Amino acid sequence: MPLTDPDRLFSSDPKLRSTARSLFESVEALPILSPHGHCDPSWFAQNARFPNPAELLVIPDHYVFRMLVSQGVPLTDLGISRIDGGATETDPRKIWRLFAQNFHLFRGTPSSMWLNHSFEHVFGLDMPLSADTADQYYDHIDDKLSQDAFRPRALFDAFGIECLATTEGALDDLKSHKTIKESGWSGRVITTYRPDAVVDPDFEGFAANIEAFGETTGEKATTWIGYLNAHRKRRAFFKSFGATASDHGHPTARTENLSASDADALFQKALAGTCTVEEADAFRGQMLTEMAKMSLEDGLTIQIHAGSGRNHSQQVFKTHGRDMGFDIPTRTDYVGGLKPLLDAVGMEPDLTVLLFTLDETVYGRELAPLAGAYPSLKLGPPWWFFDSFEGIKRFREATTETCGFYNTAGFNDDTRAFCSIPARHDVARRSDCAYLAGLVETGRLSMADALEVAHDLAYGLAKAAYKL
Amino acid sequence: MPLTDPDRLFSSDPKLRSTARSLFESVEALPILSPHGHCDPSWFAQNARFPNPAELLVIPDHYVFRMLVSQGVPLTDLGISRIDGGATETDPRKIWRLFAQNFHLFRGTPSSMWLNHSFEHVFGLDMPLSADTADQYYDHIDDKLSQDAFRPRALFDAFGIECLATTEGALDDLKSHKTIKESGWSGRVITTYRPDAVVDPDFEGFAANIEAFGETTGEKATTWIGYLNAHRKRRAFFKSFGATASDHGHPTARTENLSASDADALFQKALAGTCTVEEADAFRGQMLTEMAKMSLEDGLTIQIHAGSGRNHSQQVFKTHGRDMGFDIPTRTDYVGGLKPLLDAVGMEPDLTVLLFTLDETVYGRELAPLAGAYPSLKLGPPWWFFDSFEGIKRFREATTETCGFYNTAGFNDDTRAFCSIPARHDVARRSDCAYLAGLVETGRLSMADALEVAHDLAYGLAKAAYKL
Amino acid sequence: MPLTDPDRLFSSDPKLRSTARSLFESVEALPILSPHGHCDPSWFAQNARFPNPAELLVIPDHYVFRMLVSQGVPLTDLGISRIDGGATETDPRKIWRLFAQNFHLFRGTPSSMWLNHSFEHVFGLDMPLSADTADQYYDHIDDKLSQDAFRPRALFDAFGIECLATTEGALDDLKSHKTIKESGWSGRVITTYRPDAVVDPDFEGFAANIEAFGETTGEKATTWIGYLNAHRKRRAFFKSFGATASDHGHPTARTENLSASDADALFQKALAGTCTVEEADAFRGQMLTEMAKMSLEDGLTIQIHAGSGRNHSQQVFKTHGRDMGFDIPTRTDYVGGLKPLLDAVGMEPDLTVLLFTLDETVYGRELAPLAGAYPSLKLGPPWWFFDSFEGIKRFREATTETCGFYNTAGFNDDTRAFCSIPARHDVARRSDCAYLAGLVETGRLSMADALEVAHDLAYGLAKAAYKL
Repeated sequence: MPLTDPDRLFSSDPKLRSTARSLFESVEALPILSPHGHCDPSWFAQNARFPNPAELLVIPDHYVFRMLVSQGVPLTDLGISRIDGGATETDPRKIWRLFAQNFHLFRGTPSSMWLNHSFEHVFGLDMPLSADTADQYYDHIDDKLSQDAFRPRALFDAFGIECLATTEGALDDLKSHKTIKESGWSGRVITTYRPDAVVDPDFEGFAANIEAFGETTGEKATTWIGYLNAHRKRRAFFKSFGATASDHGHPTARTENLSASDADALFQKALAGTCTVEEADAFRGQMLTEMAKMSLEDGLTIQIHAGSGRNHSQQVFKTHGRDMGFDIPTRTDYVGGLKPLLDAVGMEPDLTVLLFTLDETVYGRELAPLAGAYPSLKLGPPWWFFDSFEGIKRFREATTETCGFYNTAGFNDDTRAFCSIPARHDVARRSDCAYLAGLVETGRLSMADALEVAHDLAYGLAKAAYKL
Repeated sequence: MPLTDPDRLFSSDPKLRSTARSLFESVEALPILSPHGHCDPSWFAQNARFPNPAELLVIPDHYVFRMLVSQGVPLTDLGISRIDGGATETDPRKIWRLFAQNFHLFRGTPSSMWLNHSFEHVFGLDMPLSADTADQYYDHIDDKLSQDAFRPRALFDAFGIECLATTEGALDDLKSHKTIKESGWSGRVITTYRPDAVVDPDFEGFAANIEAFGETTGEKATTWIGYLNAHRKRRAFFKSFGATASDHGHPTARTENLSASDADALFQKALAGTCTVEEADAFRGQMLTEMAKMSLEDGLTIQIHAGSGRNHSQQVFKTHGRDMGFDIPTRTDYVGGLKPLLDAVGMEPDLTVLLFTLDETVYGRELAPLAGAYPSLKLGPPWWFFDSFEGIKRFREATTETCGFYNTAGFNDDTRAFCSIPARHDVARRSDCAYLAGLVETGRLSMADALEVAHDLAYGLAKAAYKL
Repeated sequence: MPLTDPDRLFSSDPKLRSTARSLFESVEALPILSPHGHCDPSWFAQNARFPNPAELLVIPDHYVFRMLVSQGVPLTDLGISRIDGGATETDPRKIWRLFAQNFHLFRGTPSSMWLNHSFEHVFGLDMPLSADTADQYYDHIDDKLSQDAFRPRALFDAFGIECLATTEGALDDLKSHKTIKESGWSGRVITTYRPDAVVDPDFEGFAANIEAFGETTGEKATTWIGYLNAHRKRRAFFKSFGATASDHGHPTARTENLSASDADALFQKALAGTCTVEEADAFRGQMLTEMAKMSLEDGLTIQIHAGSGRNHSQQVFKTHGRDMGFDIPTRTDYVGGLKPLLDAVGMEPDLTVLLFTLDETVYGRELAPLAGAYPSLKLGPPWWFFDSFEGIKRFREATTETCGFYNTAGFNDDTRAFCSIPARHDVARRSDCAYLAGLVETGRLSMADALEVAHDLAYGLAKAAYKL
């Protein structure tokens, strides 16, 4: 019995299933556009083998280790490194076994679908993972990883990826991207401009980062004008490595549109480390509007990922640092927050601002009405905890009636788990086709229209929104 | 192939479909009660022909032009007038073509269902609207509009409307309603008392409006007592033109129950234009309670439409004014907001307060628990962005288990798009029958009970809640 | 025709129905664990007959009388006692008739499912309740109640209850529990430590309660140290009557982790009755953290029932007092509120904190991400307005993808309506099996796994979370 059902995610109702299957067959083989994610570009620059199953599938995936931690497994037992350099498990097989014996925790979760998809379709496994099969799995996958066909570039091609965007900080030298570019390899791996470290006054080492920002760009980055010019130069540099978008991870959706002198005053406070919580938020908000204005100059699409409360557990943050699975969503206000930006540039038809949220309550109340009015706005796909069957279903059901399909931007896998990319696009395409089948079979969409929409959701809308 | 599926909105599951169809057949032909909406009474007073397809179906419908604007079509290209009198498109055929070539944007939206329903069932068209068929559509509809059978009164009868409520401001002379009344026409078109312009200190020209309010009523409307009496007189005047309800569009659900002297002090500030944002909100809140108290005297049902943030785009508001599709919902607190009103009159069994929301998160958390306890409260149907299949489904699923069906108030089409009225009631009746079929087929409601409930949802509850 | 459909709550789709039925058959006969509820322990201590149908099924059930009140039936007509001792209806048959003639109000609600289940499966009735059958119902049920098989202990056994937890205040002498313990009866009825009256500065008579708390425990409970020790002693006393959990009904999810001196200062203010609203909330929040710390000592599971705004109607509260169906949910912040507690003890694998909410918007945004990360947190089942088919469906759909099944805690009936216990567990088991069937039939869960999960949801998870 295979690990994955060929009709997975399609309704068991025969008419819905058959319609969904027809729609899916029309998009299943389309190339993958991955316009936003967190793969490591060095994989493709160096094309070295992935070290072992644990380091490929467990340790880097906070979806996975978070669930084990939530049931009492210590982070150190999973090989997650400590800030103080203290001991953590180093035997990948032991880590793998711990993962395998707890695999039942993932029942009903997208992680289980993604992992089983990878096990079956990437590695050719067909028995369920459990404590009993842990070693068999480990040996099998480890053996595969030693083969050339499982090196990063080969997998990239095998996955049918047409374009993959990574995400780099504003100070990154894009060395790996340079290596890729110069290597002659045909795979299209592009970067994304993510300036949080030089935009967020609360970021560790903000003032030092701005200093480095000035050195890198030859601008006097401690002045407001020089600082903005430094951004312009770095955006151009990122564009030269394929970037078509910037990305901004902010705790709120606040924007501001201050005068240059007010903005400068805030910037000087940020440099001096004297911003209040409120002023830091205002400065980040000002920078979203500045980025949007620069997008009008250079054409980059702007992505706003708002509403993640980072590093909720003090203890985990102290011991293990950032991105340890303890980022928790918070209630987010887009209607009030975005108004200054939208009053400044919201009616510009040539600007593309993509909105992401971790607060599903805003889909119908805020995001769809905004995107269904402002020409500059489009909705990014369900993000993080919500890029799953139910998450996609809720997104479509809550937004389509108000803003249609053409104010949305296709799918993002947004992952650092490389092997899950085909699985995630498979889930998204199936989920969208299941949704479309429901519209067709309840007389809300013709099959001819549904076929066009299915193609747009799987491919066309992402291509347009990200100018790929 | 018809534009509308005869089984539209019913599940494709054979049992659910057949049960939904049986329920729908029992209510399909019931007369339409339209107890809240924004049709222009002059249509029925003058009974002139509708000028052309664009002015009938595109220009007045902010659901429609909003979507085109969201994809970069300038408002002026759609013939939307400018405040400064600047040029806008005046050729209705050009506007129609622009609409037709963008009709794919409406895929999956209720606008597409409503429009296709009108095209087929009002105008007898059966090919899909597109750039290719734009002129054919235009000519066909324009020809129909020139026929007597397509004049407003004839359509009113053809649509099977038993009663249609329009909405007029407190200062309106109700001239069109007078004309209708005196015309001897049998159609029942009634008005609704909507006093926002003399209740909201933030309304343009508030003080001048109060002056006019005094002149119209012969009351000294700048004193608190005179002002309340002016309301009483206008309510009576509106009642003489059939009004059975008042309606209140407020940004929040706040209410107050101040002493007369505190209320008067606030009123004087409002007249002087010195209210803070907070005081203006308090004054509006006080007036909701005053209106509820007057309802105890004169029997008008009170409708509270709370939570719309009006005119979000500064630029659109400056260029084109109000109601341009840029009203965006905001988070709304009913539990705290309504407490003063409810403490004052909430337990009165003879009072009917209908609550509407644009914040679906309050259905289960706030509105259904409130309506399931207070005798005066009933829930208005899903409003604006949510009077659609999915919107109605979410409303029923989130409210029925807590407050049942009998604390809800039937359907409102709430439209200014006259031709969409049968389509909207068709969608509501089908959506409710689909929901009821689900209850029947999962053993939660007997078929005998479902038939009674279907009738109540389509007809009886609106008749009772609005005393029609 | 039976009142209850044997396949109720299962999809009408044949595959889904058959899978759901198979899953349900595997758990249908499992014993009932009722680890949280509000049954009166004196029923089982005295084992007297229930007085009459109205006092068994109408008067104590605020779900039921609330609905009648919402349609204009006065509380006094339903026999609800008045604080001033004023007259209320005393004839149980009259009350029953009023209930029966309004039974249509419950169409589509869980109350209707629970009541029909009791009518049929507890009392053997099979015609619908209505005005016409009211007397027949009354006589039939009253006759049953006079039989020994319908006394509390006999019903407890007939219902298949393995363990039932009641809830008592910190000052309760647990007399009934003592009687039960000494009676030799084999039924397992345990208590739960609910200290709201000595934890909430806003509780009526807080200072007097603390005085009594000191007397009961022999501690100087007006000092911070003595107060905490008094809690320790009472927790131990409750444990001696089987308690495995404490329970906390707080208006917010706020927690604090103050120094002992700051906590003491707040406590002294609370005793003096001088706490601000904000300080009272802080004190309650501090006590949640104290309780969690004591749980690390004594092993009690801690339940947080947050977000109910109590006694919304001033008039009803004045006339009839607490718990009269006018408790209305409010928006609740768990991410910010719980942080101090979680920073203190959240990573402890031996602590079990169960979170409950009346704000469904937090399922996906806050609760599932928190429970899917912190080892101490688990999600309690849908509560109060939401322990229904749709409520359970939304809970599973919104939480499973993020925190799986194993960070949830099985079902609570949380009822004071004894006869509804089997009905409520029946609804929960069916709803969960219907949900699992959906996962199986869309390829998201294997049938083998689903069978294990069904058992865990019906039995295993509650047993583990409450250490039963």
